[in-house]
Amino acid sequence: MDNPVVTGFAWAPPFAQGLIRDLRVRWALAEAGLPYAVDLIRIEDRKSAAYRRWHPFGMVPAFAAGGRKLFESGAIVHLVAEKSEALLPADPAERAETIVWMYAALNTVEPPVVDLFAVDVTSRDQDWAKLRRPSAVETVGERLAVLADRLAEREYLLGRFTAADVLMATVLRFLRDSGVLPEYPVVAAYLERCEARPAFRRALNEQLAEFAANEPVPA
Amino acid sequence: MDNPVVTGFAWAPPFAQGLIRDLRVRWALAEAGLPYAVDLIRIEDRKSAAYRRWHPFGMVPAFAAGGRKLFESGAIVHLVAEKSEALLPADPAERAETIVWMYAALNTVEPPVVDLFAVDVTSRDQDWAKLRRPSAVETVGERLAVLADRLAEREYLLGRFTAADVLMATVLRFLRDSGVLPEYPVVAAYLERCEARPAFRRALNEQLAEFAANEPVPA
Repeated sequence: MDNPVVTGFAWAPPFAQGLIRDLRVRWALAEAGLPYAVDLIRIEDRKSAAYRRWHPFGMVPAFAAGGRKLFESGAIVHLVAEKSEALLPADPAERAETIVWMYAALNTVEPPVVDLFAVDVTSRDQDWAKLRRPSAVETVGERLAVLADRLAEREYLLGRFTAADVLMATVLRFLRDSGVLPEYPVVAAYLERCEARPAFRRALNEQLAEFAANEPVPA
Repeated sequence: MDNPVVTGFAWAPPFAQGLIRDLRVRWALAEAGLPYAVDLIRIEDRKSAAYRRWHPFGMVPAFAAGGRKLFESGAIVHLVAEKSEALLPADPAERAETIVWMYAALNTVEPPVVDLFAVDVTSRDQDWAKLRRPSAVETVGERLAVLADRLAEREYLLGRFTAADVLMATVLRFLRDSGVLPEYPVVAAYLERCEARPAFRRALNEQLAEFAANEPVPA
């Protein structure tokens, strides 16, 4: 994990600010106490042939460390977490349970959450979006009810903070304007707890400051 | 990884047979040469309080080994893969790249693939499904085009077979009736190559034999 460099967007439109997935990687590195550099690309360059030789899906984050080039936010957070007990417990049982909740965040919770985000935000003008909303809300609600049970007597998913919380909290942030979170106060309080962590604040503020500095000048 | 036990469904309706995610875990264990036992639950018991104390989301697979109880197919495959170089290369660069493609399969490829499966199968009677189909097909096509590039000169995602192929191939199987795969012959050939592996055949046949043995008697 020598000289880590996180690739993000120089600027993103307001609906996406605070949700771009390099936030996960910055936050994880900050929790682990690993200094890193940032490399910013223009959002319109993400599908360029040059960038796709690094990140074939043309998304962010991309990541470089120790001469190795990686992509996929979950994998990068996983590999960063392996370098720090602050993110991945050494105890084998706790480590396994952390990995369970990391995958649960990205494969069981994120897909319905992003479906609802598409309905409300990115695809809101599509003719199917309004019709799809009730079932999208229902599935998100099922997932949040499970999280509420899990977090009823735990401060974080594993009790103590881990990389699973980095992933789960950055997933839950996609619900910020959905109106769904207040119905699950245990989950909403958990998200606030995660967002109050100094490492999260630092990562988010850094990303938002970059967006502000690179905001396009109106024509 | 002592005495692994995979939990699956005793029976599932035909549209889901061959897609239930304990297939991933059985296949991974078979590739690793790790013998395992199977524990079958009735599909209608997945949401019971007793089962949800093990798998809070009420899905399969659940998994037990060495006195540890786990869930979430991606995490189980990841933890099985750590026990076998047949699934996770020891070389650090190849290991990192395998983990990248494992997360890519579940977080970048599976969500749009399962969206299309919902449109065509599980939600086909919903009023939004037909309207949603063109954009769902388009997103799946973007992902498959990236895979076709990746696999143009590679037999498997990493060149050699790894756990990333277990996850990616079981994701791609959700497209079996979509009509989309033939447009990406490199990807279709890759899936066939994965499905021709003896460990895959054994895992699938075992699962299908259980379904046949437990098929409900018509009333």
